[in-house]
Amino acid sequence: MLVLELASPTSKDWIDQAIRHIDLVLLDHANCEKKAAGNALSLLFRYPANGRLVETLSPLAREELQHFERVHRHLQRLGIPIKPLSAAPYAGRLNQHLRRSEPEHLLDTLLVAAIIEARSHERLGLLGIHAPDLELRQFYLWLAAAEERHWQLYLDLALDQFPADQVQERLDTLLQVEAEILSTLHPDPRVHS
Amino acid sequence: MLVLELASPTSKDWIDQAIRHIDLVLLDHANCEKKAAGNALSLLFRYPANGRLVETLSPLAREELQHFERVHRHLQRLGIPIKPLSAAPYAGRLNQHLRRSEPEHLLDTLLVAAIIEARSHERLGLLGIHAPDLELRQFYLWLAAAEERHWQLYLDLALDQFPADQVQERLDTLLQVEAEILSTLHPDPRVHS
Repeated sequence: MLVLELASPTSKDWIDQAIRHIDLVLLDHANCEKKAAGNALSLLFRYPANGRLVETLSPLAREELQHFERVHRHLQRLGIPIKPLSAAPYAGRLNQHLRRSEPEHLLDTLLVAAIIEARSHERLGLLGIHAPDLELRQFYLWLAAAEERHWQLYLDLALDQFPADQVQERLDTLLQVEAEILSTLHPDPRVHS
Repeated sequence: MLVLELASPTSKDWIDQAIRHIDLVLLDHANCEKKAAGNALSLLFRYPANGRLVETLSPLAREELQHFERVHRHLQRLGIPIKPLSAAPYAGRLNQHLRRSEPEHLLDTLLVAAIIEARSHERLGLLGIHAPDLELRQFYLWLAAAEERHWQLYLDLALDQFPADQVQERLDTLLQVEAEILSTLHPDPRVHS
């Protein structure tokens, strides 16, 4: 069985930054959940005749929206005012590595989505340990488990539609790219800074 | 209380066209539900700090996706192959009437969404009466009730944020526009042909 293993663990610097600015990280996290739903939906628009994607990604998008609503409730509970926030360059830089021609584009899109979910799984798990609020810690531990399901789901979509060795090879390349992107801590506190 | 009343009822020509090509209407309907979810989501992206929109439109987008999944299951049950389908010009032509500056843009977007839901409510209700398949008729009657809730919800969002007389006046104008767009039956069988 193919397993997705991140090429580098998150640094202590990120944890320190996130805990110091948990309000910004929470705000950014709300945006991330919204974007995760948007990305699942845009895959449905781009591949309307791919039944396998429909069955998997529509329920996934619903789940991401439910998470978004829950993050939003924590923001309200903690009195954090909602304001527009710039995104970390992380996802944009990963997307630069999507090959343009099909079917490679689909494979890369699924693998990048899997990697983002895997990194979220790791980082939300860290917030589940270190966040400065009991309710928040419980929320994040619960959420981290869901993110683990999500990367598995994107990886399964890739394995259903592409040969395993092709998936493995491309996944290894993209995992290296991802570790490289995160090797320098982004100055703005974000889930993927 | 402000009520949304369509300026013209759907013609018998549309019903005849829809029943003759129920396979295409169902396919188009799947796309409509997906687009309804996408539109609700894009409002969340465009107005990230509007808490009222977040609370209402995220659950709405989830419900649209659930409908999308149910339409998809009917397509599979009836053995209708999923294929790309051009959209009716309806929504595009309505969107040409959105004013560009804020806050008018938000008001118009909410009202156009309400009108589309109201027309869907009417037409899905007609399919609930005339569709050539018992399960489909039951599905459409159930769905029509949801669409009615949806137009009310978009109208409430407008009334929460704009004076009632401004909402009423703009709604009347857009309802006239909508009736004009549908006054000629579009040759391709669609939910909004």
